[in-house]
Amino acid sequence: MRALTVIPHQPGSLQVQEVEDPVVGLNELLVEGISLGICGTDREIASGLYGWAPPGKQQLILGHESLGRVKAAPKDSGFAEGDIIVGIVRRPDPVPCGACARGEFDMCRNGLYVERGIKEVDGYGSTGWTVLADYAVKLDPSLGEVGVLMEPTTVVAKAWDQIDNIDKRAWFDPTRVLVTGAGPIGLLAAMIGKLKGLDVHVLDRATSGVKPRLVEELGATYHTGSVADAAKAVNPDIVIEATGAPAVVVQAMQLDIPCEIVCLTGVSSPGSSSPVDVGALNRNMVLGNGVVFGSVNANRHHYEQAAAALAKADKKWLSGLITRRLPLSRALEAFDITVPHDDIKVVIDLQK
Amino acid sequence: MRALTVIPHQPGSLQVQEVEDPVVGLNELLVEGISLGICGTDREIASGLYGWAPPGKQQLILGHESLGRVKAAPKDSGFAEGDIIVGIVRRPDPVPCGACARGEFDMCRNGLYVERGIKEVDGYGSTGWTVLADYAVKLDPSLGEVGVLMEPTTVVAKAWDQIDNIDKRAWFDPTRVLVTGAGPIGLLAAMIGKLKGLDVHVLDRATSGVKPRLVEELGATYHTGSVADAAKAVNPDIVIEATGAPAVVVQAMQLDIPCEIVCLTGVSSPGSSSPVDVGALNRNMVLGNGVVFGSVNANRHHYEQAAAALAKADKKWLSGLITRRLPLSRALEAFDITVPHDDIKVVIDLQK
Repeated sequence: MRALTVIPHQPGSLQVQEVEDPVVGLNELLVEGISLGICGTDREIASGLYGWAPPGKQQLILGHESLGRVKAAPKDSGFAEGDIIVGIVRRPDPVPCGACARGEFDMCRNGLYVERGIKEVDGYGSTGWTVLADYAVKLDPSLGEVGVLMEPTTVVAKAWDQIDNIDKRAWFDPTRVLVTGAGPIGLLAAMIGKLKGLDVHVLDRATSGVKPRLVEELGATYHTGSVADAAKAVNPDIVIEATGAPAVVVQAMQLDIPCEIVCLTGVSSPGSSSPVDVGALNRNMVLGNGVVFGSVNANRHHYEQAAAALAKADKKWLSGLITRRLPLSRALEAFDITVPHDDIKVVIDLQK
Repeated sequence: MRALTVIPHQPGSLQVQEVEDPVVGLNELLVEGISLGICGTDREIASGLYGWAPPGKQQLILGHESLGRVKAAPKDSGFAEGDIIVGIVRRPDPVPCGACARGEFDMCRNGLYVERGIKEVDGYGSTGWTVLADYAVKLDPSLGEVGVLMEPTTVVAKAWDQIDNIDKRAWFDPTRVLVTGAGPIGLLAAMIGKLKGLDVHVLDRATSGVKPRLVEELGATYHTGSVADAAKAVNPDIVIEATGAPAVVVQAMQLDIPCEIVCLTGVSSPGSSSPVDVGALNRNMVLGNGVVFGSVNANRHHYEQAAAALAKADKKWLSGLITRRLPLSRALEAFDITVPHDDIKVVIDLQK
């Protein structure tokens, strides 16, 4: 079969090549890959900054935003040929920590998890793949091509779930949310905010093009400029940071709004320092009972929440998030950041 | 009567002087002041950096860490002459926000609260004071002089209550806590950690004297050096930051421990920037599901929790936190930070 492979920590090693067909293991589904979404983590792995190959191997099949069609399923697995599925990304260690033992492997405490296409186990970027039935999630076939947005939707479902949990620390009753960044995570977070009935605001630096249009179509308000100015206009109860840009992150953390919850979802690069008034930041957080927390990954519960959200969302709007489709043979173009694109989500068609 | 007064935002205005006796209002207790604890917020107000006088007045009676004896109480108030009490610091606006309406005025959302001795209402730093019966809390008389530690204990009870609430966002089961700073807040936070059965570690820059001794007597482990080194040795699930020192705050925020909860309790001064690798900080928080939150003040529930904690704690150890006592006539000495003192808590005897 053909696969998108990379040698982790070796820049320039990304390629599409013939690899051996997967061997179907116990309780596993055999799946035909339909499409694969590409995100910042994939680009980070491709550029040699992240990722781990499976033990004993040099090479990793990339890809964790999956969409596939079941070709063969074990009896009593709950799956049948033709089912449209996505594969869960993270899988706990056989000797689970307390969180993993409860199915909360997104909150793993010992770091011994593996992740498809990221950490020690091959991903979903191939014409065929296998997945344990327990780590597959069936999708409503009517979702069609936007099913590939399931995995990023699980990430924001988890972020919202954590916000809802932290919210319970005291009376909160949020009405306004400010999302920084109108990429896939920001827009999907805004979409869930709208489904929750909140007054949703999205801040991005793009002054025209697809981003303002998608925000407007969602019934949310689009902002450009500084986080401080947007926050002054909106007075948000919740901020969801989805750029990972240090300058935006620090502005979001420095807001002085009582009992505000700031959720960080963007994975930024380390290595560059800028001056921060930590005294002011700390003072605001203490005197305002502020919360800043990071959120990553998703467990099965969040896949269910994401499926419910996608079922309720406007399919046409969702399909607008997929701004570019590339055949697998041209997958490397999705990683070329030197070409300016007004992209939200780039998707690889695995069968082309 | 005599009182410790200040003109907010006027450095050098702190004085002990004769003021008019308080007028007992509806549902109020008349109280003889026993003693008053002095904290960083009092010192900040005294140095002209914080605080608000009551509406229409120039001058504020300072003091919010109270201890008093009831001289007269309304019938059916639940209080009687001779009761030992502390007064609650914060009182919500007559038109309460949603949090205040639930009694969670420590989590006030509209900022319209008042605070005894801090914000728009006279404090407890006088030979006599009044308090609404609903904002008074009876103490076990056996606590004696350490009853003046009640208010700072409520602050750490609230911090722990918030940690326990945020902890519920996922499986957590903490076993180790690192407290940065062995001042009154740090030591009382450590004390509650011990009462919870946790493995407690306290970091401070003092290499000898009362702080290491008090930590050892508590059955906790004392550390000096950097937060990073202490965290490496301890691998804490929870960090309670109680120095407010920007360099310590930023180190606590930058720790890379999965699902860690960092609680900020120290009120720092704004106005000085230092280089921070925000990309690394954000990345660690996102990939590790880290939480950093600020905690201030306390509601009645936390006064009850604090009273329970003080009842269980070793009275001799608690009295060791009070390292200096000054008569009211010499109260200004408690604010002289040019004299080096190995102080934990300085207390003013209001009747001397």
